[in-house]
Amino acid sequence: MSKYAFGVDVGGTTVKLGLFNDEGQVLDKWEIPTVKDNGGEKVLPDIAASIKNKMQEKNITAADLVGVGIGAPGAVNADGFMVNGAVNIGWGSFDLAETLKKELDLDVTVKAGNDANVAALGEMWQGGGKGYSNLVAVTLGTGVGGGIIIDGRILTGTNGAGGEIGHIHIEDNETEVCGCKNKGCLEQYASATGITRLANRRLAKDDAPSILRGGEISAKTVFDAVKAGDKVAIEIAEQFGEYLGKGLAAVASVVDPQIFVIGGGVSKAGDILFKYIEPSYKRCAFGPCKQAKFALAKLGNDAGIYGAAALVLK
Amino acid sequence: MSKYAFGVDVGGTTVKLGLFNDEGQVLDKWEIPTVKDNGGEKVLPDIAASIKNKMQEKNITAADLVGVGIGAPGAVNADGFMVNGAVNIGWGSFDLAETLKKELDLDVTVKAGNDANVAALGEMWQGGGKGYSNLVAVTLGTGVGGGIIIDGRILTGTNGAGGEIGHIHIEDNETEVCGCKNKGCLEQYASATGITRLANRRLAKDDAPSILRGGEISAKTVFDAVKAGDKVAIEIAEQFGEYLGKGLAAVASVVDPQIFVIGGGVSKAGDILFKYIEPSYKRCAFGPCKQAKFALAKLGNDAGIYGAAALVLK
Repeated sequence: MSKYAFGVDVGGTTVKLGLFNDEGQVLDKWEIPTVKDNGGEKVLPDIAASIKNKMQEKNITAADLVGVGIGAPGAVNADGFMVNGAVNIGWGSFDLAETLKKELDLDVTVKAGNDANVAALGEMWQGGGKGYSNLVAVTLGTGVGGGIIIDGRILTGTNGAGGEIGHIHIEDNETEVCGCKNKGCLEQYASATGITRLANRRLAKDDAPSILRGGEISAKTVFDAVKAGDKVAIEIAEQFGEYLGKGLAAVASVVDPQIFVIGGGVSKAGDILFKYIEPSYKRCAFGPCKQAKFALAKLGNDAGIYGAAALVLK
Repeated sequence: MSKYAFGVDVGGTTVKLGLFNDEGQVLDKWEIPTVKDNGGEKVLPDIAASIKNKMQEKNITAADLVGVGIGAPGAVNADGFMVNGAVNIGWGSFDLAETLKKELDLDVTVKAGNDANVAALGEMWQGGGKGYSNLVAVTLGTGVGGGIIIDGRILTGTNGAGGEIGHIHIEDNETEVCGCKNKGCLEQYASATGITRLANRRLAKDDAPSILRGGEISAKTVFDAVKAGDKVAIEIAEQFGEYLGKGLAAVASVVDPQIFVIGGGVSKAGDILFKYIEPSYKRCAFGPCKQAKFALAKLGNDAGIYGAAALVLK
């Protein structure tokens, strides 16, 4: 009986791989470099070779394998097709699932998804959202990513843009342009870079004393200062929370999740985040949605390989 | 072979019923009064009796019947359970699908859903969203209702609040309270009542000439004035469109639909609505979502019976 799956998470620098059993335990995990030369043409052959090596090493045959799941940074539709390619890898549009299956040349299921969506599935399967089937994963990193799981399945959307909650328009008075070319996106306030922007703006506003002055400004230093009771840092955290709570309340009015799972670098600040998100969330969320739970992501950088394996195991 | 279905749409005054064949054609439709006495205890027995009469009249046996679908005004979870009852009918929480099945006492499938969600399914099946499977239906009536269809299925949400897009928080500076008890909900600006509010506020602001002055103010008179070129009315329509476009752009960042189908009383204004919605939609929507289509709903008050039948036929 088939009982193993590989989960693959393609990043701009490394590809993470994991071998899982069908109970959701990771048996082995490793990385290979992402070779981006020539439009990233080596990436999938390298992944296939690495998987085949691991199968040999572990004495796993194709018959033992449920399949291989892969997450990649770009829009992937429900058929595993990369709609607009993946700029970070150098890939254009192509059938990611089918191409990896050809490279593997094995009679197994291959499924593909967007990396943020796949990570959300991972958190639902074995992470901060374990036990839930309607979940919104929010990744507060360089940007704000999102992944939405409805009845245990990824909400991919028409263009693979389902769960792109970082680009909810949340501020009419923004003058700077977001990476997506709009102005006033949630990502401009709630990502690590967004928090830094909010901090620099606040610090420039007056000369109120703050331990942040003169030092490095980052999401980490801001939340460290919050924990130290710094009033200016607390104001910045309140602004961040006001935006994020409002954005997540809008998400709740659309998909009405059981739980929000917050991950990404900013989430290293810990539970204190919720203290700043929840007031505006509860103020703005539709009645029944006010009771949605908030939890921290648990799988860190492994969410992608877990979720990729879940694509074929769940 | 089973080839018929009944679609039932429970409203506060009347219950609409329709008999459909499995090709989606309505063969007969009629109404019965909603008897709300004693917590609406007669409503389901009346529906069951009406369906059985119709079966007898049309010589339809249980074996000819795929099933009965029913939509009701309140949150209904994926199992057909009314989570918080239906205040307009007098119902408390109960298993709507199961109870109707018992009243029918027939060996057929009975499914239930929220009326706005069910109407969305109807518009997808045979209305303005025909041919699409990822759709957001927006009902601009007394309130702003919504129904979200993903891969052909209703997005119900944890509390049956999926698609409650009228309660997206869209305005921080609102002083009046929405029906949901929050302040600044989309519904406060984009519903028929919302448009009237915007109009009254605009007219009170100064004494700019307008054909709206002195007459009845409603969504209809406002859009009639827009069509007549009235400058103040156009400003009101722009405000309405600014709010609604922004709200729908947020929805797009979450579920990335192929199409928005706009219905409800306000939609009688026609295509001119899109002229006011699209500028802020295109400005605020995430890149790939900017191309989503907009269409008018086509089934009017029959969307509910179509969608209810689709619950069992699709």
